[in-house]
Amino acid sequence: MAELHPQLKKDCLLIGQFSLCRLLLMPDANYPWFILVPDRDNISEIHQLSTDDQHTLINESSRLATLMETLFNPDKMNIAAIGNIVPQLHVHHVARFKNDVAWPAPIWGKVEARAYAENEIQNIISELKKHLTEDFVFLI
Amino acid sequence: MAELHPQLKKDCLLIGQFSLCRLLLMPDANYPWFILVPDRDNISEIHQLSTDDQHTLINESSRLATLMETLFNPDKMNIAAIGNIVPQLHVHHVARFKNDVAWPAPIWGKVEARAYAENEIQNIISELKKHLTEDFVFLI
Repeated sequence: MAELHPQLKKDCLLIGQFSLCRLLLMPDANYPWFILVPDRDNISEIHQLSTDDQHTLINESSRLATLMETLFNPDKMNIAAIGNIVPQLHVHHVARFKNDVAWPAPIWGKVEARAYAENEIQNIISELKKHLTEDFVFLI
Repeated sequence: MAELHPQLKKDCLLIGQFSLCRLLLMPDANYPWFILVPDRDNISEIHQLSTDDQHTLINESSRLATLMETLFNPDKMNIAAIGNIVPQLHVHHVARFKNDVAWPAPIWGKVEARAYAENEIQNIISELKKHLTEDFVFLI
């Protein structure tokens, strides 16, 4: 398994593993915010993945986005590979609402993260466990 | 052919068409910035595309990102589907440099667009015409 970048390890909660990507939760209660990290060494750009891995990435991304729509009923999904600070390829998936604190701007650099209450994170994990029943390994 | 959203039509320069996506140039000289718009009606999220179209999208995205690396030699590619204002699915591809005006922040909402000189846009189009020689139709 490829090493997770120390900044991702520090900032995020590791939830589990799809066939290609690790699933992380960004603990910012302003928005439901997950990150996919392909489990491959020394990759910083999507196009550096093999074609098969690229297809798996978009499959897993769409599976995650569909699940986030089911769980959170957002007005829009925002999906982005930025990586200007953390070079390990990671793809943000953020559920956006017309009444969230940054709407309609993208979320990065807009407002300080807001802490979740412990039970809120537990609730999210419980919901994920109800829905991610196939081809996903929980590590939490 | 699916109608291009009026805001994209107004803000961007239509360059041409891959097999799935139209290629637009955002005329902001701060960064090389292209947009892919899948030629499908009533799609606002990647996961609403068919699986085949999702695979074609990531193929075309990686082809564009690779070409942008060749032409501009950036420090990082930023690729994002946001769409909080323009609902028609469109995927930003931005070549980022450690000395650009917004680095390391994402570009959206950071600084005013800067106009290209006319010959700069012509140079970009000439370069694209040299490199996009297969399965791409120029509309400019």
